Amino acid sequence: MEIISVGTELLLGNIVNSDAQMLSRKLSELGLNVYWHTVVGDNPERLSDAVRAAKDRADIIITTGGLGPTCDDLTKQTLAQAFGRELVFHQDIADALREWFGARGQTMTENNLQQAHLPENCTVFSNECGAAPGCAFEEGGKHVLMLPGPPTECMDMFEKQAKPYLEALGEGVILSRTLKIFGMGESKLESLLREQMNAMSNPTLAPYAKEGECELRITAKAESREQAADLIAPVEEQLRQLLGDLIYGADVPNLETVVVEVLKEKGLTLGCAESCTGGLIAKRLTDIPGSSAVFKGGVVSYCNEVKESALNVPVDVLEQHGAVSEQTAKAMAQGARRLLGCDLAVATTGVAGPGADDMGNPAGLVYIALAVGEDVFLRKMELPNASRQRVRTTAAHHVFDMIRLYLRGKNPV
Amino acid sequence: MEIISVGTELLLGNIVNSDAQMLSRKLSELGLNVYWHTVVGDNPERLSDAVRAAKDRADIIITTGGLGPTCDDLTKQTLAQAFGRELVFHQDIADALREWFGARGQTMTENNLQQAHLPENCTVFSNECGAAPGCAFEEGGKHVLMLPGPPTECMDMFEKQAKPYLEALGEGVILSRTLKIFGMGESKLESLLREQMNAMSNPTLAPYAKEGECELRITAKAESREQAADLIAPVEEQLRQLLGDLIYGADVPNLETVVVEVLKEKGLTLGCAESCTGGLIAKRLTDIPGSSAVFKGGVVSYCNEVKESALNVPVDVLEQHGAVSEQTAKAMAQGARRLLGCDLAVATTGVAGPGADDMGNPAGLVYIALAVGEDVFLRKMELPNASRQRVRTTAAHHVFDMIRLYLRGKNPV
Repeated sequence: MEIISVGTELLLGNIVNSDAQMLSRKLSELGLNVYWHTVVGDNPERLSDAVRAAKDRADIIITTGGLGPTCDDLTKQTLAQAFGRELVFHQDIADALREWFGARGQTMTENNLQQAHLPENCTVFSNECGAAPGCAFEEGGKHVLMLPGPPTECMDMFEKQAKPYLEALGEGVILSRTLKIFGMGESKLESLLREQMNAMSNPTLAPYAKEGECELRITAKAESREQAADLIAPVEEQLRQLLGDLIYGADVPNLETVVVEVLKEKGLTLGCAESCTGGLIAKRLTDIPGSSAVFKGGVVSYCNEVKESALNVPVDVLEQHGAVSEQTAKAMAQGARRLLGCDLAVATTGVAGPGADDMGNPAGLVYIALAVGEDVFLRKMELPNASRQRVRTTAAHHVFDMIRLYLRGKNPV
Repeated sequence: MEIISVGTELLLGNIVNSDAQMLSRKLSELGLNVYWHTVVGDNPERLSDAVRAAKDRADIIITTGGLGPTCDDLTKQTLAQAFGRELVFHQDIADALREWFGARGQTMTENNLQQAHLPENCTVFSNECGAAPGCAFEEGGKHVLMLPGPPTECMDMFEKQAKPYLEALGEGVILSRTLKIFGMGESKLESLLREQMNAMSNPTLAPYAKEGECELRITAKAESREQAADLIAPVEEQLRQLLGDLIYGADVPNLETVVVEVLKEKGLTLGCAESCTGGLIAKRLTDIPGSSAVFKGGVVSYCNEVKESALNVPVDVLEQHGAVSEQTAKAMAQGARRLLGCDLAVATTGVAGPGADDMGNPAGLVYIALAVGEDVFLRKMELPNASRQRVRTTAAHHVFDMIRLYLRGKNPV
């Protein structure tokens, strides 16, 4: 199959083609093979050329973009023409559009009615996040699906409408489950599992690398959802036996979400003291709606005076051991716990880089402390030759990993 | 011209095609028109098909990816074949590769020598960020440039080697300058400047929208750099007359960088108190290497107790006016300034959403305060129907905008 993305803003590099990425990922989870991505501008000739090529080489064509109300939005016209279909007017869509604008206190201008014209005999995909509807049709054994360009609209329409349409084309069900891993690199994971992965056909197993993390995706094909789940379960069990606590969750977005969930379950509160991560830990926790139930707050003690004044780190600890030290990390975590009145507090102090600090500590060296009651656990991270951003991100991963392990009754160090 | 990106990981949706975006942007700054992006997997037949199509429709073909040492890396072989060229072995590249591995304490395996084979009579692009070199050649009026896939390698090689190669193809120099704007939306900016933009040919003027910000790019073509700069200057001057303080910088990455620079110039220090932005302001400031010279730290007071205990916000202010109020924002900023011992302190309190808070304050309502000495300036932001992420990002933009205006002697409210 092929994904054709339409939009001059993509060719100008104004936006990245995240639709193609997200759709490709979802399609591969459905067991569908994407062989081509094509991007063309808002230009009817080049779009026609792209569609002609795709017709020859793909059974399923998905387009993104070009469904809006302006004269640049040419996807429906061009695709309908390429497949010999007329566009027909849908009164119900026109009414829905008028209502959509009304709900936003706007009057619909006439050009918006263009969005109510769709190829004859198509399946209409309504747009729950925006104005322009999408659609799908089949012609001569080829399936065409048209989705809007804005990523939230595209993904919502895909999940709710295009995915069921595509599933109905195949036989049976495809189910996948993603195990999230922190603490082992992709290449090590791959070499550990390579033989097993190569020997598997249903379910399949595939590793993915993400900024300092990994994922293992198990995908099964079966007649029913239950049968697919039954195929996945023993593989997951086996991976859990093999990888143990390195797996921090299944089908969860990230470490911080797991931390917030477990804190909620246990009715515990969290606070933080950040030096080298400079707010990143608090930012990632507060990215999550509802995190205020467990996250009380934090101190970004980017200079030594604030470590002393806000966190009560003793002057002699700072003078004797330096800001980047085990002792300072521990004192920061305890100071944060007391100041913020929380059950658990974490602290980071280290060198984000680029370059070593004034005391000669190398970039990538970070001390991470977790205070619980009077106990303090410490982890030392060393990440030489990593970028500033990578050092900060990975240090934050370690923080969340320590909290998670502690809350699960494991050794967080 | 056309960009062909090679890599199965792109078709699986494992990574987004950021190379195509970054290259497109750079190419459009050079005044070159990209008409197609194509993505194919590590598959020689489909890559051959893609190259055949590109040869017919493009004068310049840039490939990314597939230059590495594994059997999946087929770009050079396929392109050389498509243009009737042999691959020849470069002893100097082989030596450099061996050295590269040696410097990393590794022994080079034989498969890496594949990277020392390049199409005959090509321009070699050395790789300063990785192992695989790139190259360029011309055949029958068509130019082919091959760049590595990893984004840092791709962009470094483009900037230092591919860009001069492309510039040498054209006559003269292309120069561009980007004015960064906060406080006016793209559509308003576009309607304000549309006539002028349409009337211009050299330099050209193009607006770009970014998360809550805008950019205006002026691009001039001339015989020399100086002449191009002379063409740009009066347009910039005119835009500065028109937009005034809405322009926060030229050729700068973002608002926070401007804030850090101006604070350094003036020898002033900054601190923050964050409620709804939850660490984002501190995180963005500390993303910048060297920000520790001016940023002392911050408090993330995500719950009311921390607003009281750490920031000394009076209980009756919280009880009378609520956490989301002008009064609380002001008290937070003053509290942060005293606690952190800084010259300026900013504070945010509001509703990031989704949904209103317990007191009925709508999502998107944020109070932002800037304390300087005993003075406090206040801005109220209302952003209904925006996502949680958008509310937080825009509130942080406003914070930096207020600081910038104050430091420039303007009214920050």
